[in-house]
Amino acid sequence: MTKVGERYLEVDPWTVVESSFRPELGRVSESIFSLANEYMGVRGYFEEGYSGDRLLGSYFNGFYEEIQVIQPAAYKGMIAKSRFMVNTIDWLYTRIQLDGETLDLAKSKFTNFRRVLDFRTGTLYREFIWETRSGKWLKIVFWRLLSMVEPNLGCQRITVSPLNFSGLVEMQLGLDFSPLHEATAQNFWSCEERQQQENIVALLGKTNSLGHQLFSAFSLKLGAPVQAKLVEGEKYIGLKFILELSQDKSIDIDKIVTNYADKNRNTPSREVWKTGMKQALKNQDLSFETVLKQHTSYWSEVWRTSDITIEGDPENQQGIRFCIFQLHQTLHGADSNSNIGAKGLTGEAYNGHTFWDTETYCLPFYMFNNAKAARNLLQFRYRTLPQAQERARELDCQGAFYPIATIDGNEGCGLWQHASLQLQVGSAVAYGIWHYTKVCNDDDFLYNQGIEMLIEISRCYASRGQWGPRTGEFGFYGVMGPDEFHMMVHNNCYLNFMAKKTFEFTLRTIKRMKTSCQELLLKVEQKTSLQPSELETWQH
Amino acid sequence: MTKVGERYLEVDPWTVVESSFRPELGRVSESIFSLANEYMGVRGYFEEGYSGDRLLGSYFNGFYEEIQVIQPAAYKGMIAKSRFMVNTIDWLYTRIQLDGETLDLAKSKFTNFRRVLDFRTGTLYREFIWETRSGKWLKIVFWRLLSMVEPNLGCQRITVSPLNFSGLVEMQLGLDFSPLHEATAQNFWSCEERQQQENIVALLGKTNSLGHQLFSAFSLKLGAPVQAKLVEGEKYIGLKFILELSQDKSIDIDKIVTNYADKNRNTPSREVWKTGMKQALKNQDLSFETVLKQHTSYWSEVWRTSDITIEGDPENQQGIRFCIFQLHQTLHGADSNSNIGAKGLTGEAYNGHTFWDTETYCLPFYMFNNAKAARNLLQFRYRTLPQAQERARELDCQGAFYPIATIDGNEGCGLWQHASLQLQVGSAVAYGIWHYTKVCNDDDFLYNQGIEMLIEISRCYASRGQWGPRTGEFGFYGVMGPDEFHMMVHNNCYLNFMAKKTFEFTLRTIKRMKTSCQELLLKVEQKTSLQPSELETWQH
Repeated sequence: MTKVGERYLEVDPWTVVESSFRPELGRVSESIFSLANEYMGVRGYFEEGYSGDRLLGSYFNGFYEEIQVIQPAAYKGMIAKSRFMVNTIDWLYTRIQLDGETLDLAKSKFTNFRRVLDFRTGTLYREFIWETRSGKWLKIVFWRLLSMVEPNLGCQRITVSPLNFSGLVEMQLGLDFSPLHEATAQNFWSCEERQQQENIVALLGKTNSLGHQLFSAFSLKLGAPVQAKLVEGEKYIGLKFILELSQDKSIDIDKIVTNYADKNRNTPSREVWKTGMKQALKNQDLSFETVLKQHTSYWSEVWRTSDITIEGDPENQQGIRFCIFQLHQTLHGADSNSNIGAKGLTGEAYNGHTFWDTETYCLPFYMFNNAKAARNLLQFRYRTLPQAQERARELDCQGAFYPIATIDGNEGCGLWQHASLQLQVGSAVAYGIWHYTKVCNDDDFLYNQGIEMLIEISRCYASRGQWGPRTGEFGFYGVMGPDEFHMMVHNNCYLNFMAKKTFEFTLRTIKRMKTSCQELLLKVEQKTSLQPSELETWQH
Repeated sequence: MTKVGERYLEVDPWTVVESSFRPELGRVSESIFSLANEYMGVRGYFEEGYSGDRLLGSYFNGFYEEIQVIQPAAYKGMIAKSRFMVNTIDWLYTRIQLDGETLDLAKSKFTNFRRVLDFRTGTLYREFIWETRSGKWLKIVFWRLLSMVEPNLGCQRITVSPLNFSGLVEMQLGLDFSPLHEATAQNFWSCEERQQQENIVALLGKTNSLGHQLFSAFSLKLGAPVQAKLVEGEKYIGLKFILELSQDKSIDIDKIVTNYADKNRNTPSREVWKTGMKQALKNQDLSFETVLKQHTSYWSEVWRTSDITIEGDPENQQGIRFCIFQLHQTLHGADSNSNIGAKGLTGEAYNGHTFWDTETYCLPFYMFNNAKAARNLLQFRYRTLPQAQERARELDCQGAFYPIATIDGNEGCGLWQHASLQLQVGSAVAYGIWHYTKVCNDDDFLYNQGIEMLIEISRCYASRGQWGPRTGEFGFYGVMGPDEFHMMVHNNCYLNFMAKKTFEFTLRTIKRMKTSCQELLLKVEQKTSLQPSELETWQH
């Protein structure tokens, strides 16, 4: 039953290279070759269409849909709705035809395949030579990036080079809302608006259950004059054109894409369209080179400040850089509404949910190189404090019961006992507040937001736990510890200890505020209706 | 959090009496005053219509519907379909109008309420005096029974006595498929066929998902001549008539009902109709008195053979008789397809599912007073052996993994870990086989059916457990013991011990068969492809 990874990628300090395509590992590669910029992410799928096994995944941070959970029996604490990071638009959509044959790496003959993820440029590069049934050899390069500078911006460059012929190739580039959300085998999109406005082709998608909206637009820059024809479908808009190729001459096709995700159900469609189109108009004059330059320069700065060098161990050198690259891709402080899902923005597993892993494992990384990102992560918990308070009520607790898995602050874990008996998220948040404010010296956060969370978490623990009548010691009955396996255990060591630490830190902070910022303390005492008797209770 | 029952019923050795209606305890009373005859059951609801809180529940043993389970995330072993004993027909449907006022105990004024469940007659009796807004006093008695002699037969007697007036009362008696299945807040029925054929009014219902069919018919016997008018609805058929009442004279209205449940989806509707109608024609000439006499005589025999007398403790005397009454109502050996759901036929909780409680707690009761019923319970497990074998495959085990909760042999428990980690059902079945065959001396069952289950259960345990490399001792890793709380524990004492006992009994039985019935042994060895090496493995 042990999972052993197969090594099929080249070891290199700054890149991940797949030098011959392994279709049986296609899904693994799609995950590894994912790109993201915190705002959005795409798996490393083949944008030209691929009839083999794959997951065409394109996600936006915190952008979700929901389904009603149907359980055979309802028990207290079970969730009624499941929310998940929904699969969105294939904004890299490409189709290429030559002599009537459509390119499809599951069926077409090809050689010299090479796929490269480059940590320094933050790009995914892929090349191969397509050998058509008619005997033509066409070298194709796909190159993509998601701008770390402009969150709404994605770019794709396709370079075609005819190696043994001159002639015509037909191409279609578009925006496609028809990919399925794989986990539910459903498509959640409908598209009522689509339009071509000068050089910009745009489409607005709306999710079926929650009505979240996503605007997408692209403009093309071609290295050759073409007559492009507009193609429209129910959930699609694109441009079709024929390129005239001359042997040994390369042509670049650049697609500049603007994606704008609105998560507010109440925004009128025309507003979303307007905001998105404004961005698209701003982006349309950008060249691939300009964007790439800015983007690369962002990554240079990341490596200048955050690189870790491991000498004499090339595998781990590559590995640690891959991790740093992934963390920065997934989150770097661009938006205080973002968080880090268990799989980042690389796939559907774990529904895009954030776990206590954020505070426990990810937060420390940012504290030392990106304090803004670290603070944003804790602000996500502050913003979702009301949902945690509501969840506490559902579980007969006081204060705030932070969810074990969430995308919007509400409990998203569908496993009954896991969601109801695991209490370590609260203490992880408290630990995160302690750790971050200590390392980053952020008393402003601690006294304005952190303290409110600390009080509500302490309150929850005090209401859920017990003090031994004889020893006076605090502990929990009937919990699931952070091993996430054994349920209904008493006095889980980790939890008991972390609750104690949470009480102590809360009391210590209140004491400090009494001398250093009494007004702020008064404010939070009023807001939380804190009683002196509560502080006594936590004093153990 | 402790649940403490409120005593609101009279203590009596042979009856349960509610002498003034307690609407806030209405659902509890409905459960307590339930009637059943193994084939079908009805809660003690008010058949004349009631606008207060209640559950109008009418069930048939093993008669189920299913819904697709929608889980936020899928894990190995989770069930995809939820099957449950579905709420069916209100075959006691009654409406009574007097001076334009419709009787409804949530709104009408009434006195002298009394509801009596009688263990000796197996009937539910209810009486009260309705005081209409127009000042009329009408005493009404409802009396019902579900025949223990004819499983398809149910009877209702309504007696009306005008205490202070002579005049007209309007009544409607019918069959109604519109009650909701409360747990899913859905009605699962459609009715394509309804008909009045001479004195018989009949209706055929079909469930929406599985197409299970239920035929219902009634005929009326009235103590006065009336002109009855047929009333039809989408899921309803009934007779409406006006009775002329004379002060101080009682009139009986008897409803003889035939219910025929077909659980085979492939039976054509006309066949179900034909079979049901044949029964109804046979039943229509029966009088309430005749049915009551046969029914009471059945119960006399039950009490003659199975009564338990507790002297000097009236509460427990009533309690033990209530339990005996409930057990015989729910199951008494009429049908080898029946089993005992966690709530019998009295409600929707636990979905009508059978648990290991059947073998562990119920089976011993029957072994000593109704060997046929005991054997039927074990035969249910034999009949559903294929489903248990399939479930074992799903959980990467060999042999047979009996479900923790089931109505049709398939796993019906929607709690992931409970369904996948609880292994005690297999050993409960093995224990049941041992216990029953030992007490009832049924070698025929043991050698023909029991042994096959024993082999498959032992096989399952051997594949799921481990033998210690040093001690050679057998035990399980990662299970949920019969406490049903702690999950992923190792070496649960009860389970380890019961598995050992299962291995031992299986081997002992095989050894005995070698000398006493070698041919039967050969047959089961061939059927189960039993290997000598397996027997060696179990020898610990």
